[in-house]
Amino acid sequence: MPNPTAAMLVIGDEILSGRTRDANMHHLAQELTKHGVDLQEVRIVSDDKTAIINAVRALSAAYDEVFSSGGIGPTHDDITADSMAEAFGQSIDVRDDARALLEASFTRRKVEITEARMRMARIPAKAKLIDNPVSTAPGFTIENVHVMAGVPQVFEAMVASVLPTITGGQPLLSQTYRIQRGEGEIAEPLGQLAKDYPDLSIGSYPYQRDGLYGTNIVIRGTDGAMIDAAMTRLAERFPK
Amino acid sequence: MPNPTAAMLVIGDEILSGRTRDANMHHLAQELTKHGVDLQEVRIVSDDKTAIINAVRALSAAYDEVFSSGGIGPTHDDITADSMAEAFGQSIDVRDDARALLEASFTRRKVEITEARMRMARIPAKAKLIDNPVSTAPGFTIENVHVMAGVPQVFEAMVASVLPTITGGQPLLSQTYRIQRGEGEIAEPLGQLAKDYPDLSIGSYPYQRDGLYGTNIVIRGTDGAMIDAAMTRLAERFPK
Repeated sequence: MPNPTAAMLVIGDEILSGRTRDANMHHLAQELTKHGVDLQEVRIVSDDKTAIINAVRALSAAYDEVFSSGGIGPTHDDITADSMAEAFGQSIDVRDDARALLEASFTRRKVEITEARMRMARIPAKAKLIDNPVSTAPGFTIENVHVMAGVPQVFEAMVASVLPTITGGQPLLSQTYRIQRGEGEIAEPLGQLAKDYPDLSIGSYPYQRDGLYGTNIVIRGTDGAMIDAAMTRLAERFPK
Repeated sequence: MPNPTAAMLVIGDEILSGRTRDANMHHLAQELTKHGVDLQEVRIVSDDKTAIINAVRALSAAYDEVFSSGGIGPTHDDITADSMAEAFGQSIDVRDDARALLEASFTRRKVEITEARMRMARIPAKAKLIDNPVSTAPGFTIENVHVMAGVPQVFEAMVASVLPTITGGQPLLSQTYRIQRGEGEIAEPLGQLAKDYPDLSIGSYPYQRDGLYGTNIVIRGTDGAMIDAAMTRLAERFPK
């Protein structure tokens, strides 16, 4: 059976404007690979309701699982929860289960309960809460979309909460071999290797360092012995 | 007149598998912001012809300019040029102008001219070449899509070649104010500020450091004096 497929939706004006670098994508990609889920697409859209709705509907229809990050805080620019509810035709309001979590946390931390803070308990009617052990305010799963916070510590904790609920496939294994030659010199034998191992994915990633050209060859697949065999042939053809 | 809009298409299995972090997106986002071009969406897809064709057609139709990175080298997994030609119904072959550039460079560097290396001269029939001062092999512009290399040094050089050919708008200015409080405490006055300045984009980015919650407020717009005025009101409301 092929591995389940996934996409990520990053909601973030601050990434599109170049103010910050996204960190969550790299974390999710690594976790999914380990879990045997095949991340096939990432989209980054701005904090715009129409953009979020169009993107999440397209990704939800095309992939088994969708993971979103960003826009579920208490401020005016946090429109993700309302957008998700609208995308899937659900009503949204402060929900009792989420309110109870937040009230218990605020009371324990002696933080005033305000209307703004209670916005974080707005959850679509049929969504399932995602546990947030870092800062309490929950994420949620709506249809096949896991809606999570953008703050990296919270995002990572929510990914850890969600992943065990998803049936993964075989972890994707990979080995890397560095060759101190440009891609042009190795393209032909590498293409032959790719033809001889159609079940493996053989990627070629050129780099340039101190004026020298080199290439990292990454061989990926789910069969470790087959990767070993291809890697041995590669090393024989291009000894260190 | 509103600023021109843009999208980026990153072609890269190695990012989706979590092997590498994308660096080109952050660079392009910063350059476009300076140039007055509004980056509204990024998509990352795998090295798959159908995925590339579908994504580039959608982005080309929706935005004024599209910038792609990755997959234009000489190896078997470099399928971007052929995918772009197919997406826009153009033929593709080794083109004389690109061949001349590569042959001159190979001859100068005493590098053998092979069929694999000449794959880098495959350019769609009606595309315009993008200069590559780093490693010669050109990118190209097809319709409104600028197709560039994935190696960061080459990508950045190609962006520098392309940007002067695009008429930008007003540069997007931004100022940041850091508040040592969580978002919940500032959400209400911040929402009021956003209502009072509808022409500015006021974003709120929570962070957590050493167990303390804080928020970066970023005010963006094209009118510097208006940003100053909003920033002054913010600083009065939340003095350091």
